[in-house]
Amino acid sequence: MPERIVVALGGNAILQPGQRGHYEEQRQNIDLTAAQLAALVERGYELVLTHGNGPQVGNLLLQNEAVSDLVAPMPLDVLGAMTQGMIGYMLQQSLTNELRARGIDRPVVSVVTQVEVNAADQAFARPTKPVGPFVSAEQARELEAGRGYVMKPDSGRGWRRVVPSPQPQRVVETPVIGNLLAAGAIVVAAGGGGIPVCCGDAGRLTGVEAVVDKDRSAAVLALAVNADLLLILTDVPNVKLFYGTPEERSIGEITVDQLEAYVRQQHFADGSMGPKVDASLTFVRQTGRSAVITSLSEAARAVAGQAGTRILP
Amino acid sequence: MPERIVVALGGNAILQPGQRGHYEEQRQNIDLTAAQLAALVERGYELVLTHGNGPQVGNLLLQNEAVSDLVAPMPLDVLGAMTQGMIGYMLQQSLTNELRARGIDRPVVSVVTQVEVNAADQAFARPTKPVGPFVSAEQARELEAGRGYVMKPDSGRGWRRVVPSPQPQRVVETPVIGNLLAAGAIVVAAGGGGIPVCCGDAGRLTGVEAVVDKDRSAAVLALAVNADLLLILTDVPNVKLFYGTPEERSIGEITVDQLEAYVRQQHFADGSMGPKVDASLTFVRQTGRSAVITSLSEAARAVAGQAGTRILP
Repeated sequence: MPERIVVALGGNAILQPGQRGHYEEQRQNIDLTAAQLAALVERGYELVLTHGNGPQVGNLLLQNEAVSDLVAPMPLDVLGAMTQGMIGYMLQQSLTNELRARGIDRPVVSVVTQVEVNAADQAFARPTKPVGPFVSAEQARELEAGRGYVMKPDSGRGWRRVVPSPQPQRVVETPVIGNLLAAGAIVVAAGGGGIPVCCGDAGRLTGVEAVVDKDRSAAVLALAVNADLLLILTDVPNVKLFYGTPEERSIGEITVDQLEAYVRQQHFADGSMGPKVDASLTFVRQTGRSAVITSLSEAARAVAGQAGTRILP
Repeated sequence: MPERIVVALGGNAILQPGQRGHYEEQRQNIDLTAAQLAALVERGYELVLTHGNGPQVGNLLLQNEAVSDLVAPMPLDVLGAMTQGMIGYMLQQSLTNELRARGIDRPVVSVVTQVEVNAADQAFARPTKPVGPFVSAEQARELEAGRGYVMKPDSGRGWRRVVPSPQPQRVVETPVIGNLLAAGAIVVAAGGGGIPVCCGDAGRLTGVEAVVDKDRSAAVLALAVNADLLLILTDVPNVKLFYGTPEERSIGEITVDQLEAYVRQQHFADGSMGPKVDASLTFVRQTGRSAVITSLSEAARAVAGQAGTRILP
């Protein structure tokens, strides 16, 4: 059996910091990403790809707000679905092209993916995830009154909407993702952390105004498809201890026990490396398999054990 | 073997004329659509769903233009992909809910779908399909100069961008759609006519600025998945002869030969019933099977032969 890898692509696999999101920029970044991924397919790995959508959903929210008098703004679950279509399309096309250029004819397909969250998740009572554009204090009050948004001051640049970030429980489309993998496809799934839905009476699914952390969803997806490896790609080749201090150093191989000790010592920042480390720990603890955190350009070497931070049981 | 039906949903299955596109409106329409579709699943049919995206892509184009100084506008292929994510999500969720309410546990999944068109298609030299918002003559000149758009006056309401509407040749994701059907899934595919792509050297796919007619794509999709029936749902229960005149009458059962004679007599309007009739003729001619054109609410009765216009070999 070929090894199956769930690859979580960071935001910069699609849009680099400082880029405005022109189509050509996004396409170039995705082509580079696809080349790295094609190298893994060439080596015989089965891939499930998942990706962030922060900048893209941010742009959609900005467009929604800017012309809300002309076009009815869509809720967050629908915007998430739109970014799955957009990014999924670009990834699917670029990777197909990279594979065909190497003489490999494998289908690559993006699946619109819902991720179930628990309606009782305490995150709903305490929204923390900032989304969308910065606005003035006055606009913030208007949005709170008119739309029921929760607005908070953010990093001294103005006010921003905050939404809940509940824990992903289950990938609704797990069976079809499994069918596609069994048929030899490379599958893009749970983009942007998945479309958050709650499950009510008679299994009725309803979209919710929330954002699921994409690394957490990657771990849930990796468990669901019985992955051999969870590969989290970000903008640095290794997880660091004492990040940003003179004692900073890279982690190579590490056990879950050691890594959890470092988590308790607060080595990893909440909004950046923290969720990646947590997702890796979840996957390795529950499966006894490995997770790797590294940069896009080191992906192939890291899978071969020659680079990156590898978390072992 | 259960009968396999490709269902082409008209725009009003998602957004009714006069509605502005609020989420609740779209969700309500889609829930009604899902109830009709669930009745077909309950009767044992395998379904592949495809849908229009005119109003939705129109709204995205409007948002793109309105804040193009803040957010980089996306090309039409990417906007099409976004509407596939959006409408696919809503259909997939509503139909799952309708099926679960009936005690049926069948996966419903939307696949981001590219449709190959021929770069030499004469449509590229003669764009005819209006898309996006109406603008003034002055704005039209600016868009022609600045973006390279082709702008034309439209129905006395101003100027609009026109894009090519090439013939669909092939659904790129045909193999995975087949895998999913074989695994028992209900598949949403080729939404909005599919994302138009051209195929270059080494099979390299590139998105193009075009719109593929969704009924034509439905016929190509129905051929690709070896459908037993092509079911085109629109806003009237039957195709009409002498439409809008005192002699107007409904067509019930009709052979392709008879229907083609009526096409030659120009009974069917270009932008509305014409493409649906053409798609039906293509499918029936090439397969020796049947096509049905009817309204959403008559879908189940029409499949049973009790309503609608049925085109026979």
